[in-house]
Amino acid sequence: MAMQNKNDAITARDVDFAQWYTDVCRKAELIDYSPVKGFSYYLPYGYAIWEEIQNYLNKEFRKRGSHNVYLPTVIPMSMFNKEKEHIEGFAPECLVATMGGGKQLEDPLIIRPTSEILFSDMYRKMVSSYRDLPQINNQWCSVVRWEKTTRPFLRGSEFLWQEGHCLFETHDEAIQNAMTFLDVYDDCGKDLLAVPFVKGVKTPKERFAGALNTYSIEALMHDGKALQSGTTHDLGQGFAEAYDIKFLGRQNKLEVPFQTSWGVSTRMIGAVIMVHGDDNGLVLPPAVAPIQVVIVPIRQKEAGIMEACTKVYEDLKAAGIRVKLDDSDKTPGWKFAEWEMKGVPLRVEIGPRDLAEGKAVLTRRVNGQKDTLTLEEIEASIPGLLKEIHQQMYEKALAHLNANITEAKTVEEMKAILDKGGYAKAMWCGCQECEDKVKELTQGGTARCVPFGVEAFSDVCPVCGKKADKVVYFAKAY
Amino acid sequence: MAMQNKNDAITARDVDFAQWYTDVCRKAELIDYSPVKGFSYYLPYGYAIWEEIQNYLNKEFRKRGSHNVYLPTVIPMSMFNKEKEHIEGFAPECLVATMGGGKQLEDPLIIRPTSEILFSDMYRKMVSSYRDLPQINNQWCSVVRWEKTTRPFLRGSEFLWQEGHCLFETHDEAIQNAMTFLDVYDDCGKDLLAVPFVKGVKTPKERFAGALNTYSIEALMHDGKALQSGTTHDLGQGFAEAYDIKFLGRQNKLEVPFQTSWGVSTRMIGAVIMVHGDDNGLVLPPAVAPIQVVIVPIRQKEAGIMEACTKVYEDLKAAGIRVKLDDSDKTPGWKFAEWEMKGVPLRVEIGPRDLAEGKAVLTRRVNGQKDTLTLEEIEASIPGLLKEIHQQMYEKALAHLNANITEAKTVEEMKAILDKGGYAKAMWCGCQECEDKVKELTQGGTARCVPFGVEAFSDVCPVCGKKADKVVYFAKAY
Repeated sequence: MAMQNKNDAITARDVDFAQWYTDVCRKAELIDYSPVKGFSYYLPYGYAIWEEIQNYLNKEFRKRGSHNVYLPTVIPMSMFNKEKEHIEGFAPECLVATMGGGKQLEDPLIIRPTSEILFSDMYRKMVSSYRDLPQINNQWCSVVRWEKTTRPFLRGSEFLWQEGHCLFETHDEAIQNAMTFLDVYDDCGKDLLAVPFVKGVKTPKERFAGALNTYSIEALMHDGKALQSGTTHDLGQGFAEAYDIKFLGRQNKLEVPFQTSWGVSTRMIGAVIMVHGDDNGLVLPPAVAPIQVVIVPIRQKEAGIMEACTKVYEDLKAAGIRVKLDDSDKTPGWKFAEWEMKGVPLRVEIGPRDLAEGKAVLTRRVNGQKDTLTLEEIEASIPGLLKEIHQQMYEKALAHLNANITEAKTVEEMKAILDKGGYAKAMWCGCQECEDKVKELTQGGTARCVPFGVEAFSDVCPVCGKKADKVVYFAKAY
Repeated sequence: MAMQNKNDAITARDVDFAQWYTDVCRKAELIDYSPVKGFSYYLPYGYAIWEEIQNYLNKEFRKRGSHNVYLPTVIPMSMFNKEKEHIEGFAPECLVATMGGGKQLEDPLIIRPTSEILFSDMYRKMVSSYRDLPQINNQWCSVVRWEKTTRPFLRGSEFLWQEGHCLFETHDEAIQNAMTFLDVYDDCGKDLLAVPFVKGVKTPKERFAGALNTYSIEALMHDGKALQSGTTHDLGQGFAEAYDIKFLGRQNKLEVPFQTSWGVSTRMIGAVIMVHGDDNGLVLPPAVAPIQVVIVPIRQKEAGIMEACTKVYEDLKAAGIRVKLDDSDKTPGWKFAEWEMKGVPLRVEIGPRDLAEGKAVLTRRVNGQKDTLTLEEIEASIPGLLKEIHQQMYEKALAHLNANITEAKTVEEMKAILDKGGYAKAMWCGCQECEDKVKELTQGGTARCVPFGVEAFSDVCPVCGKKADKVVYFAKAY
């Protein structure tokens, strides 16, 4: 089996992880650079992954009573200034339009970096009674944040995301909503991306600008760095007060509602690349793969080969599998390398020898495992095989995560862990000074979250030595 | 049957069509105004209609080999200036960002009014050989055009649309593509929106800035004005030359590809409102209705009513019908008026008398037609009923269109027709002077298109009296 161009196309993952990542993004044709720094072209293959994520989340959101809406791309600057923490958090990274229709604008327009303000304004008009609550609405859009350092999918001056924005009568309902959608994101990792997340609450320092609490899911990349992959926010009543949202409550008095927001972005694609990818390129979990099965004919001009391949193709297509038959005039070795680079989970080869035996060889992208099946078995077997592949990928990622959470009782231990890569599991007294000190002493380690359901293993803060009752996972992060 | 608040909520359609339109948009909760003029909030119910259009078109696009992509919101001004006609067409209505991250931008950024330029730049990098062609890709996004006069769905400073951008080896293929996607739009009218379109080619004056030819679908509103509802463009090689797209052809020589673009926008929702709506509000064709069937219980506290309604609801839901059971504590009359305003195609009522007979009353929104069915029949009957409703709506709209295309042999006749509303079908010599004169003399009538398949009925231009071989439909338009 000739593997032409197999490894020479991209940098090896353990030689230069950052370069490997960029190589995969480009060679797998996920993304390309536009003329403006930090703004990307999402190419057909890369965007198709995002569409699978959208399909999954739209279904799950709808089950939980969410509706989609669309709000403007622009926010008047005058309006942006009403919620103080929020404007302070976002002002430095805003893109601002000052000219419209050839004239200077009186009130400049900020290209939306997030839409809490516009949702608040919309709700001010939509909601007047407790009968209008809850409001659970979501928007798919792009947001713009002027970034100095940018990387495909991970940090862009523009990126694609969804942002849910909700209103409730009570704080309890709001907190419940933030938890519910955090679970949706966590399930998306399990069911779709084969990425295990650590779920938890952010420290006050790492909260969203204007939130009472931020909850997050954190993924661990192959290089041992963490990637915040989704957040949900309990916004309390701050935005509602600043933007004057009120409703007539059950006791016939005007009340201020409680608000949440939640979002995931194309960062999820970055997580998939960096958790599963290898030296041959992308490795996609079947549920999110634009092409789940690729059929490669061997000696395709010989009698019967294309007929057999086409039969398998038609059967799989009819069964709802996302399948591609590569009948181009490239060599089989070239095709193998190309579809490996693009991370297609399962390859079906049919050559003259296979055909003579009425069989085909199936190769799994994740681990190279081969299965030989009769042509009759293929259609019925593939859904199960794809599930098995998903499970193998998830378990591999989970093993990597679990092997890289290490208890640390001193800052020195924390530094050693973070230098190697992975989470330092440490006790924390709760003060930001200690958090800052960890960052300084470990050269960049941040509190990823206070993970849910993890028990204290000591009662001493490793930084200040004072009483500590919270477990925090620290890591270097993207 | 008490019809509370039936007609007093909105302006009558024939009293003030413009006000009626705005009233429907607001009262049916489709859209609301944002603080920036011409930028809208697409509310859950309005956006759901757009999602149905997206679902339909995405399926049809995919069948024809199209993939979705996403390109940046911003275009550098320096880059915008390369295709001359294009920049002249769009410059007056651009929104321009001049500040990013707190600093003045060296090259200001135009918020995309359309994406020919970015697609061209992307293709320049993606395409190097004839093997990379054709490229058939589409983007769903919002575009910004700074408008002085704005109206919900019809003309906004920001609106939602899809824009397909394609590249081909030959001009024939490009023209074929422009025709194929014009047919997709036409079918969308027939199958989804129950709106008949006139299909044709634009006069040179009405072409897209930078196109060799523009094809369009035109709908006729209830008030007799036309609405351009979708366009496809044969861009020739102009953009490819300006943006330096080349490919190695089959003869091993560098060639310049041929380009097309095509798009429809939320204007389609405007067409649905203005073609089908009546004095009680919106009337939605079943295929595009977010709620196809609403179940209204009568005396819902009486024994058995809610059980019977819930059974019908569950059965319809399981059958894939978009159904709503209105179990709120509002009166039935209030509910009738509310769901009529929102244009739900079919209402199912079950009250004590119906229940005693094991029956329900079904009322069609389009014409008030009532059918009494046994509870057992409902589930099996509704798909057929919805199809019948679609057909009734389409035929009604088609009759209105056909009744309002009138031959005119003089400019006076044209004026009389356009004053009354509808299309003046006229011969045309082909010169812009005559087109301009018609506009002047009819106070605003424009050439909507040279319709396909319509035979000449004279050979004299009614304006200049010279030889004419083209039929043009003139109308006042939105």
